[in-house]
Amino acid sequence: MLTRFSVAPLHTMTRSLAAVGRGREAPELVITGGRVLSTYTERMLADREIWIKGGRIAAVKPAGTFKAAAGAGKTRTTIYDVRGGILAPGLVDPHVHIESSMMTACAFAEAALLNGTTTVFCDSHEIGNVCDVAGVEWMLEDARRAPLSIFLTVPSTVPATNAQLETAGGDLTPAKIGRIFDRWPEAAALGEKMDYVSVALGDARSHAILAEALQRGRPVSGHVYGREFVTAYAASGVTDTHEAIDREISDDLLDAGVWVFLRGGNPRTPWHSLPQAIKAITELGANPKRVCVCTDDRDADDLFLFGMDWVVRQAAAAGLKRPTAWSLGSLHPATRYAKDGEFGGLAPARRADLVLVNDELEVQNTWYGGELVVEGRKITPVLERALSRRYRYPTAAYRTVKVPKRVKLTPVLPAREVTANVIRVVPPGIVTAREQVCLAQRADWTGHFRAQGLCFLTVVERHGRNGGVAHGLLKDFGLQDGAVASSVGHDAHNIVLAGTSEADMQIALATVKKLRGGVCAVRRGKVLASVALPVAGLLSDQRAPVVAKATTQLKRAWAKLGCTVPYMGFNLLPLSVIPDFRLTDKGLVDVKAMKLVKLFE
Amino acid sequence: MLTRFSVAPLHTMTRSLAAVGRGREAPELVITGGRVLSTYTERMLADREIWIKGGRIAAVKPAGTFKAAAGAGKTRTTIYDVRGGILAPGLVDPHVHIESSMMTACAFAEAALLNGTTTVFCDSHEIGNVCDVAGVEWMLEDARRAPLSIFLTVPSTVPATNAQLETAGGDLTPAKIGRIFDRWPEAAALGEKMDYVSVALGDARSHAILAEALQRGRPVSGHVYGREFVTAYAASGVTDTHEAIDREISDDLLDAGVWVFLRGGNPRTPWHSLPQAIKAITELGANPKRVCVCTDDRDADDLFLFGMDWVVRQAAAAGLKRPTAWSLGSLHPATRYAKDGEFGGLAPARRADLVLVNDELEVQNTWYGGELVVEGRKITPVLERALSRRYRYPTAAYRTVKVPKRVKLTPVLPAREVTANVIRVVPPGIVTAREQVCLAQRADWTGHFRAQGLCFLTVVERHGRNGGVAHGLLKDFGLQDGAVASSVGHDAHNIVLAGTSEADMQIALATVKKLRGGVCAVRRGKVLASVALPVAGLLSDQRAPVVAKATTQLKRAWAKLGCTVPYMGFNLLPLSVIPDFRLTDKGLVDVKAMKLVKLFE
Repeated sequence: MLTRFSVAPLHTMTRSLAAVGRGREAPELVITGGRVLSTYTERMLADREIWIKGGRIAAVKPAGTFKAAAGAGKTRTTIYDVRGGILAPGLVDPHVHIESSMMTACAFAEAALLNGTTTVFCDSHEIGNVCDVAGVEWMLEDARRAPLSIFLTVPSTVPATNAQLETAGGDLTPAKIGRIFDRWPEAAALGEKMDYVSVALGDARSHAILAEALQRGRPVSGHVYGREFVTAYAASGVTDTHEAIDREISDDLLDAGVWVFLRGGNPRTPWHSLPQAIKAITELGANPKRVCVCTDDRDADDLFLFGMDWVVRQAAAAGLKRPTAWSLGSLHPATRYAKDGEFGGLAPARRADLVLVNDELEVQNTWYGGELVVEGRKITPVLERALSRRYRYPTAAYRTVKVPKRVKLTPVLPAREVTANVIRVVPPGIVTAREQVCLAQRADWTGHFRAQGLCFLTVVERHGRNGGVAHGLLKDFGLQDGAVASSVGHDAHNIVLAGTSEADMQIALATVKKLRGGVCAVRRGKVLASVALPVAGLLSDQRAPVVAKATTQLKRAWAKLGCTVPYMGFNLLPLSVIPDFRLTDKGLVDVKAMKLVKLFE
Repeated sequence: MLTRFSVAPLHTMTRSLAAVGRGREAPELVITGGRVLSTYTERMLADREIWIKGGRIAAVKPAGTFKAAAGAGKTRTTIYDVRGGILAPGLVDPHVHIESSMMTACAFAEAALLNGTTTVFCDSHEIGNVCDVAGVEWMLEDARRAPLSIFLTVPSTVPATNAQLETAGGDLTPAKIGRIFDRWPEAAALGEKMDYVSVALGDARSHAILAEALQRGRPVSGHVYGREFVTAYAASGVTDTHEAIDREISDDLLDAGVWVFLRGGNPRTPWHSLPQAIKAITELGANPKRVCVCTDDRDADDLFLFGMDWVVRQAAAAGLKRPTAWSLGSLHPATRYAKDGEFGGLAPARRADLVLVNDELEVQNTWYGGELVVEGRKITPVLERALSRRYRYPTAAYRTVKVPKRVKLTPVLPAREVTANVIRVVPPGIVTAREQVCLAQRADWTGHFRAQGLCFLTVVERHGRNGGVAHGLLKDFGLQDGAVASSVGHDAHNIVLAGTSEADMQIALATVKKLRGGVCAVRRGKVLASVALPVAGLLSDQRAPVVAKATTQLKRAWAKLGCTVPYMGFNLLPLSVIPDFRLTDKGLVDVKAMKLVKLFE
């Protein structure tokens, strides 16, 4: 079984590696005839070969050294000629939520390896929000069986706000977080501390959680919007963020000692902040040594098309030298988590996690712990076998969608003229705006919707806690006729629905319920497409290409309905820690004030 | 009492710092009107001020922000105007042996702070070689009382070789090293693994020691000479070295994933390898992100003149931008040891360890944990008080020079022509050469000495183990008439003597014995100068300026005797891990072969 444990710990292998390095023992594999991309010195080294033993690199030598030494005799060493290609370290994603791909960690590995990613730092706060510590630990077991090195940044903000503002399934108290650190050696850092307003205001629970990491000497990952929050946030001990969305805040963050993870993603989604943020380097002259790239969230099909390799290429396209760009996606993340002795460079003692790329930095081959898992852009039989033995989540993970039998999904039509507080979507879709709309007296909702570009937005509590439901109105979402629903309503993962009629919304809700969690698109009584996410209402239990295909079909249906924001952006509508205005199961939330607001005034 | 514990741990202070950062609470100290040297982005930031509370930085703001906010009213906040000077983070020395300064950690702090150094990673392997674990732990207690942040890189190579090749007072086994890691949180890494030949050859004990660090996830510091050893050494898990003495090996080391610490020091000593090694950056284009500067060893008076600040200025003089050069001496070392959340940059949450420098990067003021300890290049009363309460070593530390009553210090004159294996000193003095000299039959040594440029070289065991003595001959040392002796004969710290007559050498030995350890210079029966080092035979127990003054006098006497190699280089003559040829209490050692060689053939 190929997992990260297939390579023995370094301290058990130093004598053997030294022997190979000195030429006293033979390597098992020699990858020869390539250029080596040195992330250490940010240069291309010509004509090299890499000697591998026990899944680790023992030596990087001039090409041909092994053959010359071994002579004409037979050798058991496998020699693999890359014919002038570039050998680079496997990519290290410093910040990703695997749950966003809607697949398990074992399944996620397939797409990651195809994209040259061999190590990820995963913040499993989605499953934590649904299943508390148990969910985080299931996913850690899942991660241990995956053919990928998966570390945890311990979910820090579950729930994202508090029980007054939303109902979550999980409640990760400081004590629970401390126990996760002590129990799981792969807990490398505290994860994305999302409640930056509370942190800046000195909230006691938020700082108690920070203390759990800091007193153990672990770094703290962040999430912050707004230059005005940077100082207090950094003063709280947070030392990275992936939410630097423009040049100025990136610059501020770097000088405040905060590592900046440039987030890249499908340019049609809101994740692609890299082109703006990287200008802190290319225009303002900041040194890139404390800059990384990351993916953050990827849905299933984008996972294949917009991996870490793609993000690295965007950094190169923005003006960084190729070795520098690749460092941002390998050595820098490893250094940020103090794991650069193991990952991020092609040097002796490191894991033999490496990729063969062409001059455009496109991944051709991937070796994971010395095993060739991707060759010619296709997975090898070794990986195929590993992927067929995925972790199985326990039964409890399949029983998380608990919705009351009868729910009214649309608000009562106001009998007189009112002012409505509506959420206006702002493409590309992460940030939203609060807008006040005057609703004159009318006989039905349809007229309002046409006149103002509105539709219904509803959140239904699904953890079986209180059966709550909250109604809102959504502006500029483009949905003309039908309904969409998702059990992945960040971060509490209640069910979020948008629609133009009670009937279609009820069908959408029933569909999600029947799937034990999922996403669907409905029109006039018919389910156009759906993706089943039965594990915690967040994850499929299928292989990556299966999930990707279903997702592509869903996206087509989604677009057909006219929705202006893709479903991942839609899933964020209940996320009460991103400005400005959100809907949770408790009602409308003014994010900067952290207060509930009524729909009608 | 001002120590590193005067600043509370970050996890207890985040709420308070966030409150100051947000302007809701007042800082205690505002240092205003300066440029800030950002080690994070390697730029100078104009017109800034730094807000400090509880010894930590809470905010870096545009100059004048505090005054504008506080208004005309009275404030308890101290405002310190630096009138356009440069504010930079306190320097962090990634590799130093405090014992080389011949003073205690508490005394060392005085010179360090005058030179803007606020944190050091100290490898106390000298005292470990004399007093085993007890010595290391005394020095850790000493370090905890010092007004300086002193971390330990646990001595890894005690003895430097083995009992066949030398007699040391200490024997730090893998088990003892593991216990030091588990007992002392300031044990940040494994120290300088000096026996690079043994490491490359897979020696079992050496690799068991490496394993103690690697299995605890701690980095391993190194020491390697010769490009042919780099691969096997890196394959053994070593990730830094300060012995990169030229452009090519520095380049090799960096690409092998090894951090390079450029060592700078008095150009008249052999420590100043920076100008050659830095060419890997300035000529070969290696990125400097994994390069640091360090001091390694400094004797007492050089400690004042050639501190970390001086080394940083040399890096700037070699062509690095000033903020880059300063990063090599602050943020990079902190990052190498994964302590960059606490040290190495002027950002919120970090300790308020900072210095005021002029445009030439000369240190004017130093603040340690927010306390002004150096002002206008002079120590302040706060520091004066702290230095008057130094740690006192226990009685056992004063009883380490145990020499047999009668020792013959010179070899028997050969009765016939012989070939002698002599040690030839090679200025500047770290490396030595093996040379074969034909000694014709003569009536006394004097003729040989004049004809061949020789003098006696003798090592006397002083740990009370076996009373051993070994004789050798030293070439080109320049000593014409007299004797010198030192109880600091690296690394076993037996007594090393050179001389032209038995009589003067006996006086030198008696002097060292009487002082309970020390260094002296003797001519014709008279002691010209001496420095008493009663603590472990290595350290004075006086204040830094007192030790420095005595050292200066000793150096003058040393030069007067004609010695071509200063006494620190002389102290290395028994160090059997530096090429090519050495003398220990067991005899002459061929370093590359790790074998004893006879004096006469």
